[in-house]
Amino acid sequence: MKVFIAGVDGYLGWTLAQYLAARDHDVCGVDLYLRRDWVAEMGSQSATPIYRMTERLKAFKERFGKNLEFRKGDLRDYNFVLTCLRVFTPDAIVHLGEMPSAPYSMIDVQHCVFTQMNNLTSTLNILYAMKEVCPQAHLVKLGTMGEYGTPNIDIPEGFFTIEYQGRIDTLPFPRQAGSWYHQTKVHDSNNIMFACKIWGLCSTDIMQGVVFGTRIDEMGNDERLLTRFDFDQCFGTAINRYCAQAVIEEPLSPFGKGHQKRGFLPLRDSMQCLTLAIENPPSKGQYRVFNQFEEVYDVSELAEKVKKVGDEFNLNVEVVHMENPRKEMEEHYYNPDHQHLLNLGYKPTHDIEQEMRIMMKDLIKYKGRIEARKEALIPDIRWDGTRRKVSYLSTAQVQR
Amino acid sequence: MKVFIAGVDGYLGWTLAQYLAARDHDVCGVDLYLRRDWVAEMGSQSATPIYRMTERLKAFKERFGKNLEFRKGDLRDYNFVLTCLRVFTPDAIVHLGEMPSAPYSMIDVQHCVFTQMNNLTSTLNILYAMKEVCPQAHLVKLGTMGEYGTPNIDIPEGFFTIEYQGRIDTLPFPRQAGSWYHQTKVHDSNNIMFACKIWGLCSTDIMQGVVFGTRIDEMGNDERLLTRFDFDQCFGTAINRYCAQAVIEEPLSPFGKGHQKRGFLPLRDSMQCLTLAIENPPSKGQYRVFNQFEEVYDVSELAEKVKKVGDEFNLNVEVVHMENPRKEMEEHYYNPDHQHLLNLGYKPTHDIEQEMRIMMKDLIKYKGRIEARKEALIPDIRWDGTRRKVSYLSTAQVQR
Repeated sequence: MKVFIAGVDGYLGWTLAQYLAARDHDVCGVDLYLRRDWVAEMGSQSATPIYRMTERLKAFKERFGKNLEFRKGDLRDYNFVLTCLRVFTPDAIVHLGEMPSAPYSMIDVQHCVFTQMNNLTSTLNILYAMKEVCPQAHLVKLGTMGEYGTPNIDIPEGFFTIEYQGRIDTLPFPRQAGSWYHQTKVHDSNNIMFACKIWGLCSTDIMQGVVFGTRIDEMGNDERLLTRFDFDQCFGTAINRYCAQAVIEEPLSPFGKGHQKRGFLPLRDSMQCLTLAIENPPSKGQYRVFNQFEEVYDVSELAEKVKKVGDEFNLNVEVVHMENPRKEMEEHYYNPDHQHLLNLGYKPTHDIEQEMRIMMKDLIKYKGRIEARKEALIPDIRWDGTRRKVSYLSTAQVQR
Repeated sequence: MKVFIAGVDGYLGWTLAQYLAARDHDVCGVDLYLRRDWVAEMGSQSATPIYRMTERLKAFKERFGKNLEFRKGDLRDYNFVLTCLRVFTPDAIVHLGEMPSAPYSMIDVQHCVFTQMNNLTSTLNILYAMKEVCPQAHLVKLGTMGEYGTPNIDIPEGFFTIEYQGRIDTLPFPRQAGSWYHQTKVHDSNNIMFACKIWGLCSTDIMQGVVFGTRIDEMGNDERLLTRFDFDQCFGTAINRYCAQAVIEEPLSPFGKGHQKRGFLPLRDSMQCLTLAIENPPSKGQYRVFNQFEEVYDVSELAEKVKKVGDEFNLNVEVVHMENPRKEMEEHYYNPDHQHLLNLGYKPTHDIEQEMRIMMKDLIKYKGRIEARKEALIPDIRWDGTRRKVSYLSTAQVQR
């Protein structure tokens, strides 16, 4: 199949290009390198060195024996999107080209408005361009489990059938997103569902859990093929940040009580799942939602796992909770369904500690790059709109 | 109270300013006159003549004995919004400053993206400026009953308590909006609910039905105080369009089968309800939803009522259904709740035919202005993205 990846320079995009190429798919992609700029704006850098796109493409060709057709451009520019789809004529469009950070969207009004405008416009442009150029193509859109928030009932995959005041209907499951960024994913979901309904487009909307990991086997040992690995307060996610902290022997820092539960999955599982979605497209006009994660974990439990693996590497690691810069429930019910991908053949990794060992080994090599930007590990962006570094909490404070 | 109206030059905004002034509230407002441009873009004009703002403000002062503090500016400009709230220090902010047309948002990708960017940015700017300047103020946001779509179960006011797989929670009612414009109102609702949660702002989100009418008594007989009355395919709504059609003896034209049911309310009821919301603010941090309409009607039934009133005026009026340019259900269950405003003391007008008589009398005076733009009455913007005039349907076609 011919797969178009929007955001191919990113953590997932660059990995997916390789995963698909290794499975004989043709890959094309676009990027504006904004992620590189945002991470620099946060005073940070990827732990793994990121080569210029020309270098990346050369390495890609050497390893996979074919080109990744690439264009630099802005998804907010409709003519650019239209031209890409005309030139590439993809079977599937994987939209990973959005601003993906909750804290970044919460910095101030400018970052909030930028996030919503950037993410919504890119998706609307893709929908219109699909309608015009390739209405039969399959849009695989990256959403997030965070769209659902933490309701006190089970979370189905996108839709649920309920009885209310004596009548029954199947409706979209209510969304309660916890940041301006997460809200954009909800807005996107609503927009995409509508486009499928009125234009007969088809889409898989992926409610993805939190991804962790440094690599997939397909990357081999070529440093130019490594994907980025962010650990700063905005673009680093829980396990990735804990591993970065472990490597430089800084305390692992769950927020608040640390009993926030989320769905997690290793990078290799994310690739497996996205590829299952791509290779098993929905029917014309269908809008389907996949909850994509391996298992639900409590963030403190994960910090303890990282500490355990750190100990194996003789790292001096402790877990010290931090003030929670977010407004979120720190103890709550959480039971999301995730049957659709299992039905398509998803084989979850399950051995999360083995994955952490691989990460640790990779990251120790780049310890100096993390050390050089360790200030970026401490959050100062708060959900109340202020900007003040959070402090570590005593055991008594955590239990309060 | 001091009330700030965003979009004070519009159909509802200009009317509300007078309704509030007559009740001794202080009114200030802003507008960029975009509605005037959009209607011109549709090749149309308001049936009632609309004076320049300087004339309007002079008439306002003469009638109500006090100034309406006005500034021209763009709600997408954060510094403008911030300055306005600093200068005006309002108790309530009524946000009517959005692009309010479903067909306009469906014209093409540019109009779609403009609508979503314009509407979302203005609301986000207001939320941030409130947080910075007047976090205790009350945001009255105009949403639409169209946010809910037409589910096969009862529609509560914003939230419902349900049991799902053995557990119970109170959740936002799922939204299924039917145009890019309606989607912006859903996105806004999500954004506002989130801002109330994290910043303790308070807001009333009004899910308003379809408004009709030419005037409120407070306007008196000064033509400069009349509000606009649009009848074109984009900015005219069902009853208003039927009345404009009746006056120039063009067929009244329900879309398709014409059994679409919607909540409707006269302009004077809309003013009564908005004022009840303003005068009875929610508590700090509260986000509440009001379904705001007088009664549910089927659009064909309304056309027949307009015909009946037209007959009284010796107008030669018939009802001829038109092809439906929209994608929507033409026969469906519809039972929305609307108890909250009744509890606050809302006295519905109920005498819809008397309201139509007032409208007819007003519009006959401006018959020439409707006649001159009668082409604008026939829709050509279709939900499938094409642009072709719709045709009238035979009785056999309607029944099919």
